[in-house]
Amino acid sequence: MLRFGVSLEKELLEKFDRLIREKNYSNRSEAIRDLIRQELVKKEWLEGKEVAGAITVIYNHHRRQLVDKLTDIQHDFQKIIISTQHIHLDHDNCLEIIAVKGMPEEAKKLADTLRSIKGVKHGTLSMSSTGMDIE
Amino acid sequence: MLRFGVSLEKELLEKFDRLIREKNYSNRSEAIRDLIRQELVKKEWLEGKEVAGAITVIYNHHRRQLVDKLTDIQHDFQKIIISTQHIHLDHDNCLEIIAVKGMPEEAKKLADTLRSIKGVKHGTLSMSSTGMDIE
Amino acid sequence: MLRFGVSLEKELLEKFDRLIREKNYSNRSEAIRDLIRQELVKKEWLEGKEVAGAITVIYNHHRRQLVDKLTDIQHDFQKIIISTQHIHLDHDNCLEIIAVKGMPEEAKKLADTLRSIKGVKHGTLSMSSTGMDIE
Amino acid sequence: MLRFGVSLEKELLEKFDRLIREKNYSNRSEAIRDLIRQELVKKEWLEGKEVAGAITVIYNHHRRQLVDKLTDIQHDFQKIIISTQHIHLDHDNCLEIIAVKGMPEEAKKLADTLRSIKGVKHGTLSMSSTGMDIE
Repeated sequence: MLRFGVSLEKELLEKFDRLIREKNYSNRSEAIRDLIRQELVKKEWLEGKEVAGAITVIYNHHRRQLVDKLTDIQHDFQKIIISTQHIHLDHDNCLEIIAVKGMPEEAKKLADTLRSIKGVKHGTLSMSSTGMDIE
Repeated sequence: MLRFGVSLEKELLEKFDRLIREKNYSNRSEAIRDLIRQELVKKEWLEGKEVAGAITVIYNHHRRQLVDKLTDIQHDFQKIIISTQHIHLDHDNCLEIIAVKGMPEEAKKLADTLRSIKGVKHGTLSMSSTGMDIE
Repeated sequence: MLRFGVSLEKELLEKFDRLIREKNYSNRSEAIRDLIRQELVKKEWLEGKEVAGAITVIYNHHRRQLVDKLTDIQHDFQKIIISTQHIHLDHDNCLEIIAVKGMPEEAKKLADTLRSIKGVKHGTLSMSSTGMDIE
Repeated sequence: MLRFGVSLEKELLEKFDRLIREKNYSNRSEAIRDLIRQELVKKEWLEGKEVAGAITVIYNHHRRQLVDKLTDIQHDFQKIIISTQHIHLDHDNCLEIIAVKGMPEEAKKLADTLRSIKGVKHGTLSMSSTGMDIE
């Protein structure tokens, strides 16, 4: 652990302290560490470092052959898929969450491909980190 | 299913067709449905409709009491948590993915609270949909 | 000016210092102040404080009556419009940049309305601040 | 102008029509054209095509030498700067809006550099288009 000083205008610091309380941080260092780490994770995705994340897809499982197709595609990308969690949102709708680890381009490609399938209503890609390069 | 006509400049259509191929869509209708659904999901989050999504957190499980804290918080929010998937990224780092369903404000609050904990390196919130109101 | 200490893991600090150099910051305090101010400006937009910003629109000025329509709308919103800058990008295309100051909802509404006009090719809304509440 | 048919579920179309009214579009074609053009502009920025946009900076002009520094930097980037609009927000705060046209990397670099200057409170970069490749 290293320690360094930060200078801040009094009013800016008061506003920052209010923000910290609203977001439940225990102290300023923790909040600042988080702001820095967010920037570093953005950088990992831009620079093509190995990353981790989650892909969500919402779909109606009654659609013919949709589940087969989703499974086929996941097998094509099995090198970057760690595991999949399946949730029955209601009688028709499923939420599938796919944990991924690999190159940013591959993760984006998998998210795009899943999203493009007829019957998939919505898809997202969470861009996170393997944590290896950020303390 | 309803059908309606769309007018597009020739060049814009050519560029759209190229985009469709790159993103693997099977046809124009499917690509347009997706663009529309994305806008509708954004609206659900803004207007406080019931939504679904995923929260990711990356952390070092060797941090003392961190796992306990993460579990405690998840219990406080158990009303909106459906299930949790835990992935061992390497010897130190874990990726935890929490499937949520509920009000946007609650989901954001849970994501903020998890992110604020000392030892959590990164957190994301995927804003998706219950699928109920989008075909 | 107030001064406080921040604790950071050695590796995280090294990565932060590299980021600071890449983004041309002169020191850590300045970079941290910027990260904090970005969060505060996001908050102003969410909480409906008075904000400032810029709306861009790209359009082909040869389109019949388009310029009239854009002018009419700007007059309807003159309460939040400070001034407008007009740039001839090429023989056909114009970039118009409208400086705005007012409530977030009004600024968004003006941006949406301009974007919706036939002939407007693209529109953006820069969400910035009046600077009054951030030092 | 070309015309093609789009198939949409009845409920999805009703929701889309509501969205169109809220955003003031005159018809479905115009709204769909806009969704498509937004995707194409994102692509221009990713693929390093020539783009246009606006950079905003908020600063306190009483800061010593700040105006000089901002001017110097703008001269270093004069190749991509078209013009600058200056607004006096209040006694202290200025909003400067710089219209740019050039490579995405250059525009981002200028925005980063301006943002990094001590005394600049906030900066944004609007990513728009030259309009040349989108009808």
